Amino acid sequence: MTDDPRAARLMQDLARLADIGVDPAGGWTRRAFSPADVEAHDWFCGRAREAGLEVRFDAFGNVVARREGRAGPGAPALVMGSHLDTVPNGGPLDGALGVLAGLEVARRLIETDAIGMRAIEVVAFRDEEGRFGSLPGSRAMSGRLSAEEVARLKSADGVALAAAMAAAGFDPARVGEAARPPGAIAAYLELHIEQGPVLEAAGRPVGIVTAIAGQTRWRFDFQGAPDHAGTTPMGMRRDAFAAAARFADRFRDMILAEGGAHTRGTIGFLKLTPNAGNVVPGRVQLGLEIRDVEAGRPQALGDRAVALAEAIAPQFGVSVAAARLNAAPTVAMDAGLAALLTGAARDCGCEPLSLPSGAGHDAGIIAAVAPAAMLFAPSIGGRSHCPEEATDHRDVAVALAVLERAMRRLCAVP
Amino acid sequence: MTDDPRAARLMQDLARLADIGVDPAGGWTRRAFSPADVEAHDWFCGRAREAGLEVRFDAFGNVVARREGRAGPGAPALVMGSHLDTVPNGGPLDGALGVLAGLEVARRLIETDAIGMRAIEVVAFRDEEGRFGSLPGSRAMSGRLSAEEVARLKSADGVALAAAMAAAGFDPARVGEAARPPGAIAAYLELHIEQGPVLEAAGRPVGIVTAIAGQTRWRFDFQGAPDHAGTTPMGMRRDAFAAAARFADRFRDMILAEGGAHTRGTIGFLKLTPNAGNVVPGRVQLGLEIRDVEAGRPQALGDRAVALAEAIAPQFGVSVAAARLNAAPTVAMDAGLAALLTGAARDCGCEPLSLPSGAGHDAGIIAAVAPAAMLFAPSIGGRSHCPEEATDHRDVAVALAVLERAMRRLCAVP
Repeated sequence: MTDDPRAARLMQDLARLADIGVDPAGGWTRRAFSPADVEAHDWFCGRAREAGLEVRFDAFGNVVARREGRAGPGAPALVMGSHLDTVPNGGPLDGALGVLAGLEVARRLIETDAIGMRAIEVVAFRDEEGRFGSLPGSRAMSGRLSAEEVARLKSADGVALAAAMAAAGFDPARVGEAARPPGAIAAYLELHIEQGPVLEAAGRPVGIVTAIAGQTRWRFDFQGAPDHAGTTPMGMRRDAFAAAARFADRFRDMILAEGGAHTRGTIGFLKLTPNAGNVVPGRVQLGLEIRDVEAGRPQALGDRAVALAEAIAPQFGVSVAAARLNAAPTVAMDAGLAALLTGAARDCGCEPLSLPSGAGHDAGIIAAVAPAAMLFAPSIGGRSHCPEEATDHRDVAVALAVLERAMRRLCAVP
Repeated sequence: MTDDPRAARLMQDLARLADIGVDPAGGWTRRAFSPADVEAHDWFCGRAREAGLEVRFDAFGNVVARREGRAGPGAPALVMGSHLDTVPNGGPLDGALGVLAGLEVARRLIETDAIGMRAIEVVAFRDEEGRFGSLPGSRAMSGRLSAEEVARLKSADGVALAAAMAAAGFDPARVGEAARPPGAIAAYLELHIEQGPVLEAAGRPVGIVTAIAGQTRWRFDFQGAPDHAGTTPMGMRRDAFAAAARFADRFRDMILAEGGAHTRGTIGFLKLTPNAGNVVPGRVQLGLEIRDVEAGRPQALGDRAVALAEAIAPQFGVSVAAARLNAAPTVAMDAGLAALLTGAARDCGCEPLSLPSGAGHDAGIIAAVAPAAMLFAPSIGGRSHCPEEATDHRDVAVALAVLERAMRRLCAVP
């Protein structure tokens, strides 16, 4: 990366981190508690100590890098955070930008002696990308991850979270100790790449997140009969894919007609059985998700999708079963902190765009125990979770400046 | 299997063959030139010799079991044939019924001294199920499989046909010697299970095949963009599956509206990339085939499908490329032999149903070099290519009687 003079140290830190977890198959792979992930966290601890922060791992393995304020130990903290792990073959910014921008802001606050009564912290949450479950790091810190759940969680490739934690030096039975006491976090700010095309399309360098969208995820299972494609007349078939295709087409029409501007309905997964060119598909398993910021809408649209599938399938002699795998409610960001970020952006000379986040973030978990808000930097081409994930360096510098400005205002509160 | 008194020896032979290639994962797996396939052919050679037939392998590995007629060696042959190989985890009758019924009819003709001037033969074609390509056994016998093609053909799991042939004792360079001289086959009759539901639904015990349907096979490749399902607004997506689903739904409507009673249009294969629930599908590869007995119609409907896809894809910001993988013309069965089979069925007390074959058969290849016809026995539930593949034993006995009757008439021709 070349340096933008306004964010030179941050760009250097991003470049150093990008040396860790380079995947020969492309991009970066730092799965939670893997050797590359451990190396990244150890490297970050070293950089945070060099910046004058006191560093500890909590009981789950989250890094808490803290500088006490003038009120001394035990005071509430102003926290900046995100994560250092990646999806497989991911990009250089998802999570890393928020942690390392937080570190750079902390450096600047320390260098200018700007820390106020309260402490400041930079937090790297472990496993934001869900190797072992949904946001276990921030759930541990907010007291919503039990030792019983840790004992149950496994990665898709069969690794037990408890074993991975133990190998990295953490006692899975003590995960409860990661919970912060009430009031320990005075405010939480997370800078993250947008991972979508909205800011770029709008020509805005900064986004202020209004809410993190709720979602429901479903699995639909269409059952027909796997007949010979040459010998079975059209009228005697029970073609599971014919039913699934019509459902998929009508589902999208329904989302467009009944959803709002922030509604997303996606069919991203499909498995045909036997999936052979000369056999009528006997079974189709279909993965569907719906996201929206409007409370209750994902569930209502999910119920509509089930009704749609149940109306369509019998027309093809096919049965359908729908199972809801997951439901997460919409989480509103703290209005005061969002206004603070908006003001900071304007101070930096740019008019931010308020938008919901369609993706989940640690901020959505921390919001349950502390005021939390998020700042988005534009993603070039809307791309993320891939090696091409990138943000214009000028936009990185703007986001860093906005985060610094907001933190200075928070530090100045008596 | 229990015996039907009218077909006791055939049922016994089917039961003996069913001891070979039993797959622990279900059904029977006798892939061409595999140990189970070699064992089945060797066993069949022994049974044919016991019946008084002279047995040879041709240069490809097809078994030719022959009894000379009163005109002596070199006279044209009345041939009954089918195959002994199976699909993976297939059933006990697909191919086996035709070969072993042919053997039983040959036995009866020999026992009753009914063979006329011409020879009779029972042929087991190698690799009808296409482990190494499309019907290479009957193509070799009809002079349409070159040593150059043999040198190229590979199984889906990477086995070279030439190596498999050599391991079974056949010289791949000499495949050309399998071609029969012009006029060597006076008539070819193949009994096969229907592999479809038409005879059962019509309540008819015997089908006479009018033609083997022509077909085209296509691969459609829809290219969009693999965006984040949470962060990408509906209007900014290039969802390859949304385009493919609408195409699939409209393709079926088009086949129903523009096809005839014997038109089949099937989408049996679909591959989404990345096929993850939270990513908009960036690419969909779709396998489609069209079959019909009306000459030219598969190609005309294939062209319509391409036009349909090209009209739909841009509505989703998606591109599409269509490639025709294969085209095979309709092959009419010999009208005289079909009439002979119809008469034989009526002599046996049943009114046969004339119907096209949607599936390909060796008879469709042999038809290029000799008069050829086919007889279908009903498939219970229309099922085939699976362990449940079955035919009522009374229907097996009827089919055997019809085949015998037809052969006796052919033998009686001076």
